Formats: sequence, structure tokens, C-alpha cells
Amino acid sequence: MLENYAAVLHGPSDVRIEKWPMPLIGDDELLIKISCVGICGSDVKLYLTGRCGLEALLHPMVMGHEGAGVVAQVGSKVKGFVVGDRVAIEPTQPCGACLHCKHGAYNLCVEPRYCATATGHGNICTYYKHRADFCHKLPANLSMEEGAAVQPLAIAVHACKRARISLGTRLVILGAGPVGVLCMITARAMGATHILLTDVVESRLETAKKMGADHTLLIKPEYSEQDVVDKILTAVGDAPDVSIDACGYPSAQAVAMRATQAGGTVVIVGIGPDRAEVPLAAAMLREVDVRGSYRIANTYPAALAAVSRGAVNLAPFITHHFPFERVKEAMEVAKSGAAMKIIIHMKS
Amino acid sequence: MLENYAAVLHGPSDVRIEKWPMPLIGDDELLIKISCVGICGSDVKLYLTGRCGLEALLHPMVMGHEGAGVVAQVGSKVKGFVVGDRVAIEPTQPCGACLHCKHGAYNLCVEPRYCATATGHGNICTYYKHRADFCHKLPANLSMEEGAAVQPLAIAVHACKRARISLGTRLVILGAGPVGVLCMITARAMGATHILLTDVVESRLETAKKMGADHTLLIKPEYSEQDVVDKILTAVGDAPDVSIDACGYPSAQAVAMRATQAGGTVVIVGIGPDRAEVPLAAAMLREVDVRGSYRIANTYPAALAAVSRGAVNLAPFITHHFPFERVKEAMEVAKSGAAMKIIIHMKS
Amino acid sequence: MLENYAAVLHGPSDVRIEKWPMPLIGDDELLIKISCVGICGSDVKLYLTGRCGLEALLHPMVMGHEGAGVVAQVGSKVKGFVVGDRVAIEPTQPCGACLHCKHGAYNLCVEPRYCATATGHGNICTYYKHRADFCHKLPANLSMEEGAAVQPLAIAVHACKRARISLGTRLVILGAGPVGVLCMITARAMGATHILLTDVVESRLETAKKMGADHTLLIKPEYSEQDVVDKILTAVGDAPDVSIDACGYPSAQAVAMRATQAGGTVVIVGIGPDRAEVPLAAAMLREVDVRGSYRIANTYPAALAAVSRGAVNLAPFITHHFPFERVKEAMEVAKSGAAMKIIIHMKS
Amino acid sequence: MLENYAAVLHGPSDVRIEKWPMPLIGDDELLIKISCVGICGSDVKLYLTGRCGLEALLHPMVMGHEGAGVVAQVGSKVKGFVVGDRVAIEPTQPCGACLHCKHGAYNLCVEPRYCATATGHGNICTYYKHRADFCHKLPANLSMEEGAAVQPLAIAVHACKRARISLGTRLVILGAGPVGVLCMITARAMGATHILLTDVVESRLETAKKMGADHTLLIKPEYSEQDVVDKILTAVGDAPDVSIDACGYPSAQAVAMRATQAGGTVVIVGIGPDRAEVPLAAAMLREVDVRGSYRIANTYPAALAAVSRGAVNLAPFITHHFPFERVKEAMEVAKSGAAMKIIIHMKS
Repeated sequence: MLENYAAVLHGPSDVRIEKWPMPLIGDDELLIKISCVGICGSDVKLYLTGRCGLEALLHPMVMGHEGAGVVAQVGSKVKGFVVGDRVAIEPTQPCGACLHCKHGAYNLCVEPRYCATATGHGNICTYYKHRADFCHKLPANLSMEEGAAVQPLAIAVHACKRARISLGTRLVILGAGPVGVLCMITARAMGATHILLTDVVESRLETAKKMGADHTLLIKPEYSEQDVVDKILTAVGDAPDVSIDACGYPSAQAVAMRATQAGGTVVIVGIGPDRAEVPLAAAMLREVDVRGSYRIANTYPAALAAVSRGAVNLAPFITHHFPFERVKEAMEVAKSGAAMKIIIHMKS
Repeated sequence: MLENYAAVLHGPSDVRIEKWPMPLIGDDELLIKISCVGICGSDVKLYLTGRCGLEALLHPMVMGHEGAGVVAQVGSKVKGFVVGDRVAIEPTQPCGACLHCKHGAYNLCVEPRYCATATGHGNICTYYKHRADFCHKLPANLSMEEGAAVQPLAIAVHACKRARISLGTRLVILGAGPVGVLCMITARAMGATHILLTDVVESRLETAKKMGADHTLLIKPEYSEQDVVDKILTAVGDAPDVSIDACGYPSAQAVAMRATQAGGTVVIVGIGPDRAEVPLAAAMLREVDVRGSYRIANTYPAALAAVSRGAVNLAPFITHHFPFERVKEAMEVAKSGAAMKIIIHMKS
Repeated sequence: MLENYAAVLHGPSDVRIEKWPMPLIGDDELLIKISCVGICGSDVKLYLTGRCGLEALLHPMVMGHEGAGVVAQVGSKVKGFVVGDRVAIEPTQPCGACLHCKHGAYNLCVEPRYCATATGHGNICTYYKHRADFCHKLPANLSMEEGAAVQPLAIAVHACKRARISLGTRLVILGAGPVGVLCMITARAMGATHILLTDVVESRLETAKKMGADHTLLIKPEYSEQDVVDKILTAVGDAPDVSIDACGYPSAQAVAMRATQAGGTVVIVGIGPDRAEVPLAAAMLREVDVRGSYRIANTYPAALAAVSRGAVNLAPFITHHFPFERVKEAMEVAKSGAAMKIIIHMKS
Repeated sequence: MLENYAAVLHGPSDVRIEKWPMPLIGDDELLIKISCVGICGSDVKLYLTGRCGLEALLHPMVMGHEGAGVVAQVGSKVKGFVVGDRVAIEPTQPCGACLHCKHGAYNLCVEPRYCATATGHGNICTYYKHRADFCHKLPANLSMEEGAAVQPLAIAVHACKRARISLGTRLVILGAGPVGVLCMITARAMGATHILLTDVVESRLETAKKMGADHTLLIKPEYSEQDVVDKILTAVGDAPDVSIDACGYPSAQAVAMRATQAGGTVVIVGIGPDRAEVPLAAAMLREVDVRGSYRIANTYPAALAAVSRGAVNLAPFITHHFPFERVKEAMEVAKSGAAMKIIIHMKS
């Protein structure tokens, strides 16, 4: 008989591998034997503090929302899937009935049952069930770890669509962590021709450079906001059309608001503090739109196609691997900031 | 021989009627004998402080940017105008050559020669010249004072387009001054079905109510930000799709960011302080776009058509009248906040 | 015990009132005691020929897709409805899982279960069940017959959104039948300032004029395509920004393609023949977008708000009433073209 | 003293190299010593028939609209250019004052003075003058022949923007001539992941394949419309999101209307016949937008950046070279269809 084990978070820094109930699937669901799950910055925040953004740990919760696996069982009303299909799991199961869902903005659903939040468990576990319409078949030329990494890529695609990236876009990305780097390679695939990344850590910028950044800017403690704006304009050669905040610091948001071209767009992907003191008027008087990018809406297909057809290369992005048993160690490495993307491998 | 007189601002509270050089028109310009000029909040700021938004008084400057008059002379290459035509003057003469102009966002032009700014004189004067392509013929059923008041209406139309107002929109307008009220009647003409206006002055809300507000909310000093948000949601019956800040206060912007529906839009028309402490994350995590609305781009034709065809009624909006000689008195009344729209009438 | 009766179409001109199985509701459904159902042009086509657009009568089918009624039973998982609620029924129950649904274009759903089509029965019956998320509560100030007529209004709202109607739009509507007239009053509520309707029947144009058309044009048999284009331009005073084909004739589509302003929009709501000979180049070389408008996506809320708040007045649009028993007679009257909107009243 | 020579078209197949008046520049113009001019399909049509699209040869006219050269003289009010600057010439000088220009759609300008049309001479000549704001500095790493070829690339960029190409787009291009191939490489640079090109000439498809097409489809005379649609769907694996007609044949437009995904976009770049018999209903009932793409609006900067930064490689696209003296021979080769892009080289 099949047994299920899961990485369960009980409180700050307290993740345990435990036996977990075997899921019983409904008519419209798939049972998935998980192969790989990526670790994200938000997992680390949750692991460390029990909180992340609007979310808080209210009870023991299975971690993980970047999962891929193999279909083990198919609900009776599901079409288009068979046992053995390899799937990437879009980590949401929205209601489909609220106004946001009906308008296609299911990322804003009022009952999203997002993985590893108060309303939904995650998928660092042996077996996991999910609504079939939010499972995506992996193209044959994608590995399971790429299937897992498609989740943060889909986040980046959503952000770049919110940013209205197009051919010839001049782009500044504030923060060269995983989100920033994925936004970079996505924006490149969408035609951005000038991309500058900033960070406070030199090594991150070196990685960004290797992965294709046109320019990098190391932010030094002594730089004023104006210094950073000036250096960006000098490096890019003109004010950027778009700035993406991929770190969540008000200081970065402030730079974005001031550096971006009149009529341009600032996208904030990073989760910032509740309140921020920013030069809002500098953006508003120049009609620079300030837009958040929250989770994922309809970007898995593009992300999968981009990887499969070679528009985006995820290989250099995936830097670390841990077996399921060492999930706590993986969290600690993630916390150190040394990794770009860590993949947890379940037993096959 | 014709003589020209102008209302010239020399410094804070120092406006003088003076003889002024008669303009010589170029090939593509019109000479206009001014009939009416409206007074705007920004005129008052400039009059009182010598500053407004990004603008500062650098030299004696003719005031006024809400002008309408009669064509007195037509440049040699101008088509479609004859002497005697009644025109509303769109108070900008953009370069036409910068990227913003080429994209149709001439409100963001790098050399806008906007009336009554450092780069262009205003039109509270007897004779004024302007590029013909930014003069708009008045429909026969509009009065000259309505022709002047079309300028702030075109501002409101631009704001409502930025706000993506459509049929059924639930709208909150923060600030029931002239801009707020014009946004209200414009949004109504575009199909907004629930409109709430807030203000700290009871009498303004009474006027807004008379002019068509569905709901009003008097902001009392003791209300917390949360109180205001709660009262808005209760009054509107649901979170508004759009909030327009028509006052420029960070406290209003904060309410807008929090009260607006996920996926909705905050438009900031008011000119706020350089820096503002706001709950930006509340908007960003719910993909509420925060957008400025700056001056006017391509909305004069719609504004003129709306008044001419009865979609918008400007009559109750025009509350005070002064002859040219009493322009200083008009500024003082404007300063008092007692008027909705003051019109200066030139000698005919 | 409750009994159910329905108006069942067996073949061309063969509609019969029959006993019909009582629906058993699922967890997410409502049972509705129908009060009013409107008759639409497509009902008449189906009644007369057994075909309409992409649809064909494959088996005896309950007619009607413009229904409103009272909630008689509430599914176990439904929130927000109680027995006795008055509801307008949006006549679709899309899959929610296809790409179109996920993007918010549920009108393009691959399995729409639209009322009175091969995949779904209609609601000219005593009791009818429907998914709760496609039932809309009627505002208290709407009558049941208005609740039924909200369906074609929502069609018109969708068409006007596809048409990008905004403040100041100059609009030509080809065809002054129910769809054309509803597009007219909707476009007016969205700010269109110049609306011309054409038709081949004088009386329809008189009705359109009474209901608010600015201009009408009677199309005479002897007019050439060029004649019609010329007369439209003369009447509107300039090329229209938008043309809506609300009749489905290629001759109307041809006029729309040629008369519309460069950069404007042609929307085709009418269901035309499979192939049409049209001056496509005239539209394409002037970047006039040609767009279909198909059924309804997310416009019920706006339509309901518009009626409830007085932006749209449906009263003059509802011209004829028949009791359930006389449904065949109603179809015959509808066929004659004498009625604008016929409402079937069920027994209360 | 400087002398000017030009390739002047006098009538069908009658192009002559003649002495031509030396241009005198205005304040806002540049004098340009032409280096390279590309030959386009529309040049050939004009050369052969004296007509092309909406244009007809009314008087002897200098040919050519794909020019690049070196600034020889700078108008007194021009900023940002000096003698010696290498420039690509955007072949239009729109009025700037009509509604289309003001909205940013200057490709629809009512007085465009487009090169080599009734209202403007072309630039296959030694010296040519042009408004400075429609001259674009060549990045240092672009050759003069690439500078000329940026013109058709900018056409393709405009078409791909009209087509709303984005990451993951499935695209069919009907016609593998120069426009089709440039749309292909542009769409690739914007993220299209599946691109199929069709043509009736095998060799063109081989070239397309070499330049990056994912799929090609040779249209054989015996194929029915349905055959072509079926083969496209099979090859692409799903209905394309976008179809671009790059040949102008109604048969291609018909395929596009039927093959494109519901909710997708058909863009027509090819200049088709005045009237076409097409399955318009198939597109309209599935909300497939049918949009023309006419000339260029604001895409030179993106096209230049794309070539300069390596997002697009024009080298394989430029296949033939002729000196100025052999312009007639170049036209004859162009007529044969053997060339992708022919460049005329002026004397340096």
C-alpha cells in the first residue's frame, strides 16, 4: 500500500518530515507522485518567521509550491491526462466563480487555495493532489527539475507582462536574486534590448552578467538615491522604459519611480513593507504607472513553451540539489543566499 | 492701432495689469482676441507662492491657461480657420518631435510651452497667439465661458481615461473641489454608476451632491485611515473599482490604495508633496495600478463634444465672474475656496 | 408536488408546451422558478429554421435564454443566495477550465452549455436549474421583465466594450432592430456623442429616434454602397470612430469598413453568412480593426448597474407581453418584426 | 559645386538616372548624402505598373524609401545632429497636426509626405533632405546597408505589435517573401515560440527555414482552403494565436480567418485587392480580430536597437547589391523574385 510523507512546517525553523495522509482525489483532480520541488525566497521567509507577505502559518503546513511530478491517478471527469504523464503544478486552485476569476485574473481570486498558504498545503511530499486544470503537461524535452523551476519563471513572465516589456525595451531590474534574474531572461526573450541589474552583493551581479545582463550596478552604502538614479541613466544611456523592483525595498522602489522614463512603467514584484516613504509625485507627474505583480495568471503555457523551444534557458539558474530527507539543510542553504535555485528531489 | 494688456504675475500675490507687446503670429499660428479665461487652483498656488508642482515663477509672467476667444488673424499656412471663429485654446504647444509627442503623449513633451509656465506665457490678456493645431473651434451652442471651462473638463476627461472608467464603474473621488467635481460629471458621462466624493468641507459635498454625486463622505479629523476605508466600502456597497485622488494629500492617496478593489486603478490627479508615506504594498499585492494623470492629451475634442451634445453640463460648475480689471480680486476669491469656477471676462 | 412545464421546440415552427422533468440541482446550482423570459431574434431563427449561426436543433429542446426568476432551492455549497432571491440568469455555464475561460473570455469557452443550444436547454419553463455563479441578483428597483431584458443589454454592453466606445465617440449602427437599439442606448451611457442608425424599415428608425438616436438614415434599394457611405459622413459630420453591424448583412459590413475613420473600429454583432464579399483592403490599409462580438463576457454586472442606477432605461424597449401558454403566438409576432422586445410571462 | 543625381520613374518600367535639383534644407531639416537604399516589393509594383496600393505615379518621381546616409548639412533649428552623423531615414514626414498624428498614429496621417509617393520624392539619389525628427542615428555597429534594411524591419515590428506577439505566441505567417521573413525574425525576437510560414515557392520556404522558421508549409495548387487550415493546425500542434498575411491574397486571408485561435488576431500586412470574398463570419463568431498594419509608427527605435543589440540579425536577409548606375537592372532582378533584399549603393 502506498504511503505518503511530507515536509511539514510547525513553526519558525521547525520543518519535519512526517507521515502524512494519502490524498483522495475528486472527479476533477489528479494524484501526482512528486519528483522535484524548488525552494523559493518566500519559503525561506515562512520557514524562518512563520510569516510571508499577507500569509501566516496558522497550523502545521506542508511546504513547497514549485512542484513537478508524475500523474499516478486521474479523476473520473478529467480529460486529457493519463497515468504516467509528467506535469508541472501551477500552485493555485482558484474558485473560478469570483469576479476576478471570471475576468481571467485568477491570481486575485478571493479563495485561491494557493500551495503552502493558510488555505492550501504545499507539495514537498510523496503524493499530492491538484485540480487537473492547473496541472500542465511537461514537454518531452524538459527535465523534472526544469518543470519545478517553471513556477518562478511563470512568476517572472507575469511580471514582464505587467511591465509591458516589448522589442527594444530599456529595463532596469532592482535586485539580482532569483526573481530578478528570471525577469532578466524573460524580458530578454520578450525583446528587451538594454537590461541593467542592481544589487548590493557583487557575486549576484557577476551571476547576472554571466546569465546575460547588459549592465550591472553595485549599490554601495554611501550612494544617495540621486547617485543611483544618475548611475542608472548613465549606464543605460537613457531613462529606462521599465523598472522592476525585484527586492521589495522602498529604496529600490524610490529609485524606480524616479529613474523610469515619463510614460513608462514601474513593476513591483518584491514584497515590501506595509508602508513605504516614496517619491510618488515624481512618478505620478510623469505618468509613470506603478503596478504590482502578484503571483501568476495564465503564464504557465508561455513559460513552458519558452523553455521547451529554447527562448529561455533555465539550466544555469538551477544551482543546488537536495534529497527530500535533507529539506531542512536545503532551507538553511537557501537562507544563506548562496544559491540561485535549490531543487528538492523526492524518491523516484 | 491695436493695444494689448495682460495680467502679469511679478511675485507672490503681485499680479498687475500692464501693457504687453502685441504678438506677431507665425505661419502656423492664430492671433486670438481673448474673451474668457478660467481661474484654476494651480493659478492660485502660483499667485500665492510663485510655485506650483514642477513649475516656478522665474520672470514676470502672464497668467492664465483656461482661455477662449475669437480669431483675429490667421497664419499663412493655417487651414480650417477664418477670422471670427470662436476657439477654445488648449494651453500647450508641444514640440511634436520628441518620443512622447510622436507616441501621442504630448502631455509629457519635453518642451511643452504650456501656458503660464516658465516656457510659455498665459492668456489673461487682450491678444494672444497660439499654434492653430492646438486651438479648437467652439460648437455654436457653447458660450465663451464654457469654452474656457472646457480646459479643466479636458483635464478631467484625461484623468477618467487614465482611470479606465466604463459602464458600471464604482468610483471614489477624494476631494470635492473643481477637479473632483469635473471628474465626477465626466465619469458619469462615461457610465460610472456609483460615485462617492469625500472632502473635509461640508459645503463642497453639498455642491457635489447637487451636481450628481451618489454618495458623499465628510472626512472628520478624528477618523483614522481605516475608518475612512470602512466608511467608503459601506457607502459604495463594495470596494470601488477606481479611486481618483483629486486633492493631492498622501492621506487621500493612502485611502485610495487600500480601498480600491483588487485589480482596480488609483489615479492621482492632485499634485502631492515630493515624498509621501503610503501603504504601497496594499495596492501592489492586489495589483491595484497607481497612475498619475498629467495635464491633457487628445481630450479637447471629447470634452467639447460632451458639452455640446449635453453629455456634460458645465453651467452649474461656473459660479463666479470678474472683469479683467478685477483679476487680483478674482485671485483672492479663488484663494478663499468659496468658488467652484471663476471666469475672467475680457473686454469685448 | 411540484410540476414542471416547458416550451419545447421539436422542429421548424413546431413549439409545444409539454410536461418536462423537474430539475435536480447540484451542490453549486440554484433551482429557479422562472418569472419572465425575453424572445430574441436568434430564438425566432431557431424557431423558423431549426438553425442559428453555429447552432442547429439536434433534438427537442426547451427554448429561451433571456430568463429571470425567483430562487426556489439553493445548492449545498452555494454562498450568497437564499430562497426567494430574484435573479437574472446569464445563459451560459462555461467549463471554467479551458484557456478561454481562464483568460476571462468565457464567451469563447469550448463547452459553454449555453441556454437553448445543442449543449443546454433554455428556460421558458416553470422550473430551471443553473450554476449559481452565473445567476445575478436583481437590484430591488428592477422588475422581472427588466431582469429578463438585461440579457440582450449585456450583449450590447459586450459589443460596445469590444467597440471601445468612450466619451465623444462618433458611432454608426447598421440595423435598428433590438440589438442595434440596445447598442445605441448602451453607447450613449458610455459617452458616445454622435449616434446614427441605419435601417431599411422606416418605422424602426422612428423608434430609434424616439429612444435617442441623433441621426437616422433610411437605406433605400437604389442607394449604392458609396451613396450610403457619403450620406453617413454627411449626417455624422465626420467619419465615425466606430461602426457596429447589428444586422449581419455583408452590405452593411462593407459600408462599415469604408465609412469608419482610419484607426477606428468596426464591430460585427450580427450573424452574417459564411462567406462575404467585402472591401477588406479599405479597412486594412487604414488600420480599421474589424472585430466580432460574441455573446457575453463579464457584462451582466455593468448591465444590471446601468439599469438600476438609471444610466439605461429599458422600459421603452419592452414592447410586447405574452403568457406562457401563448408562446407560439409570441414567436409568430416576433417573426413579423413588429415587436422590439417580447416578454413571456410564466405563471406566478 | 555639389551635383545631385536621382533614379527617376517616368512610367512603367521606365526608370532613368537623371540630374536632379539639389535640395535646399529648411530650419528643421537635414541634408543627407545617401549611401544605401533598399528595394521593396512596392517599389517593384510601382516600377512595373505605375501603381501600388492607394498610390499612383502622377509625375516623374524619384524612387526609393529605404534609405540611409550621412548628414551633410544641418538645419538651423535642429538639435542633436552634426555633419557626418550616419542616419537611417524613416520615409515619412507627417503633418504632426491631424488627429492621427496627435494620437501617435502618424502612419495614418492625412498628409504623410511618404517617400516615393504622389506627395514626396524618394531617396535613390545623391543628396536628399528630410525632417530631422524622422532621421535616426545609426548605432556604430550597424552598416549602412543594415541602416537601409531597418526600414522593412520597422514595418515588420509595427505588424508584430499590431499582432500583439508575446512570449509563447503560436504564429502562422502566410507568405515567405521579405515581409514574411522579417515578421518571422521580429516575432522570434518578441518571444513567439512556434512559427510556421507558408508559400507557393519551395525555395522561399527553404530560406525561411534557414533563417529560423520552426515549420514551413508549401501550398500546392490542389489544396483546398480546408486542407491548408488542417495542415497548419497539424504542424503547429494547435490553432495559432496569431496569423499574419504577408502576401495580400484573399485565399491567405481566408485561411488566416479560419485557422486562428478563438480570441486571436489576424494581421494583414500584404496589400490585397479592393474587394475580397472571405469567411468573415468564421473570424467574427470566434472574436478573432482582423487588423491591418500600415507602414510604420514609432518602431524605428526598436528596430535599430534590435539589430544593434543582436536580437535580430539582418545579415542573411540582405542578399543582393547593385551600384546606383544599375538601378534598372536591380528592379528587374527584384521583379524576378530571386532576391530577398536588394541594396542600391550610391557612390561614396
